[in-house]
Amino acid sequence: MRILSGIQPTGTLHLGNYFGMMRPAVELQERGDAFYFIADLHALTTVRDPAALRANSRELAIDFLACGIDPSRSVFFRQSDVPSVTELAWILSTVTPMGLLERCHGFKDKTARGMAASHGLFAYPVLMAADILIYDSDLVPVGRDQKQHLEVTRDIAVKINETYGEVFKLPKPDIRDDTAIVPGLDGAKMSKSYHNTIAIFESEAALKKKIMGIKTDSTPVEAPKPVEDSVILGLYRLVASEADFRAMEGDHLAGGVGYGDLKKRLFSGIWEYFAPQRARREEIFSDPEFVDRVLAEGAVRARAAADPVMSRVRAAVGL
Amino acid sequence: MRILSGIQPTGTLHLGNYFGMMRPAVELQERGDAFYFIADLHALTTVRDPAALRANSRELAIDFLACGIDPSRSVFFRQSDVPSVTELAWILSTVTPMGLLERCHGFKDKTARGMAASHGLFAYPVLMAADILIYDSDLVPVGRDQKQHLEVTRDIAVKINETYGEVFKLPKPDIRDDTAIVPGLDGAKMSKSYHNTIAIFESEAALKKKIMGIKTDSTPVEAPKPVEDSVILGLYRLVASEADFRAMEGDHLAGGVGYGDLKKRLFSGIWEYFAPQRARREEIFSDPEFVDRVLAEGAVRARAAADPVMSRVRAAVGL
Repeated sequence: MRILSGIQPTGTLHLGNYFGMMRPAVELQERGDAFYFIADLHALTTVRDPAALRANSRELAIDFLACGIDPSRSVFFRQSDVPSVTELAWILSTVTPMGLLERCHGFKDKTARGMAASHGLFAYPVLMAADILIYDSDLVPVGRDQKQHLEVTRDIAVKINETYGEVFKLPKPDIRDDTAIVPGLDGAKMSKSYHNTIAIFESEAALKKKIMGIKTDSTPVEAPKPVEDSVILGLYRLVASEADFRAMEGDHLAGGVGYGDLKKRLFSGIWEYFAPQRARREEIFSDPEFVDRVLAEGAVRARAAADPVMSRVRAAVGL
Repeated sequence: MRILSGIQPTGTLHLGNYFGMMRPAVELQERGDAFYFIADLHALTTVRDPAALRANSRELAIDFLACGIDPSRSVFFRQSDVPSVTELAWILSTVTPMGLLERCHGFKDKTARGMAASHGLFAYPVLMAADILIYDSDLVPVGRDQKQHLEVTRDIAVKINETYGEVFKLPKPDIRDDTAIVPGLDGAKMSKSYHNTIAIFESEAALKKKIMGIKTDSTPVEAPKPVEDSVILGLYRLVASEADFRAMEGDHLAGGVGYGDLKKRLFSGIWEYFAPQRARREEIFSDPEFVDRVLAEGAVRARAAADPVMSRVRAAVGL
């Protein structure tokens, strides 16, 4: 089974990315043949600074590898290293009804939030369809917000198959309904656009400062503390063992432990959870060419998977 | 000076194509370094039959070469043989405002005429911009109907240059205002969609039948015949010498010559005008690999021109 997932290099990865997307991706490596890519072509719709795009792409690669992508079993590559994906996007465009794209929430939501209404943003679902179809992907893990785009992929694939014969395999979504909810520092969903994130690889001092700065209510030390919507508990749940989590929850309910102590425990929980990833990251930094080698090899393997599909597509449409 | 032009392989070439686009393209070879391509990626927006697309592309190549494209001086190639043009189209998309494309008449006109409103048709001006910019083209001969698309190309190039520094040369249009008006058999503009065309390479019998079938009025042989809006004169003007044209015009004005005779003269004029092209076409048919060799060599030369531009673009945007 081929699994495909991509992530945009639009900035420093945070706990929302980790628990929402990266950890599931790492776990999925056990279930099949995983193709994971750094979506730099997509990132061009928002990143207009070439140095930042290059730095973000590299940082993303390092962080993803540190978090457990195993390049000996998975294919890990940069989207732009397989440029035929854009050729496929064009071919798919020619059978994609405008109405299908006009109905996509993603474009409307993004422009409503103030992003420039570029054609790239509008055409995003077509490039995403190409990303998926070019590797004959079986399974695409997506969050709820990407569900519609995966339906568009299937619609386009069906349209091509109806027009030109059986060209594409239809991919199945793997909707992460049970995705961990990751609260940001302010209690809202953790998201770069809300400026409430904790990076996976914060320095110890920065992490401590962020955790200690979480706003809490004025419940006195001895009193029980609310557990509903608690940012401290919400984050601790993600990094602590079940027993540790229950203990912290108990301390909330019983009272007698101040927010400062609870936050210190949360800090330690997060810091320890990511200790293996930090160690792996140090190893990667000690071999500066490692990332280049991984991405170069990933590019070769990804192209080897894409090439026969593209030959099939070109023959089918008459190119 | 680099000159760029493309033509879609959407069917048999007719006199409207010849006098409107092919003859000027052949003449332009004298003025610079011409890049002419068979726009098969664009044709996918309308041709859904792979065998027809392949046959049309080949037929177009043969006819273009027969009509005077000189592959030893010009670069003659298939658009799809330089797939990085689609990569560039994606990059351009990311800075192209939706409004710019929404204002294009081409999409509205084509969908109003009943063509499916596909995303490919909508995105056409972006791929056209990539076609032009990827070869650092200086001059793009276009008909009036393509003027707006060339303005879109310039707008996109300016946008890239403003965002990323001087990446693109701004191409200049060469609007063919004085384009020969080529009447169709029914007097309307010659166009495939009006079913009033004369192919460049009609068989002798078919050409005779079409010419003799031109509808004329009931003016008697001996009477003067109207010269305004005369299809016979309109076509003859394109293929006859000035003296022969004046003689035929005089015969209209003086009377005494019947439509049948005038049509026979028109038939001969057309048939003789294309005699050298027919002879060249026979030569091409006698060497079945000639076209493949020309297109393969054209692909190599076109890619050699596109590659440095793409390197420049990728570096500029951060890929």
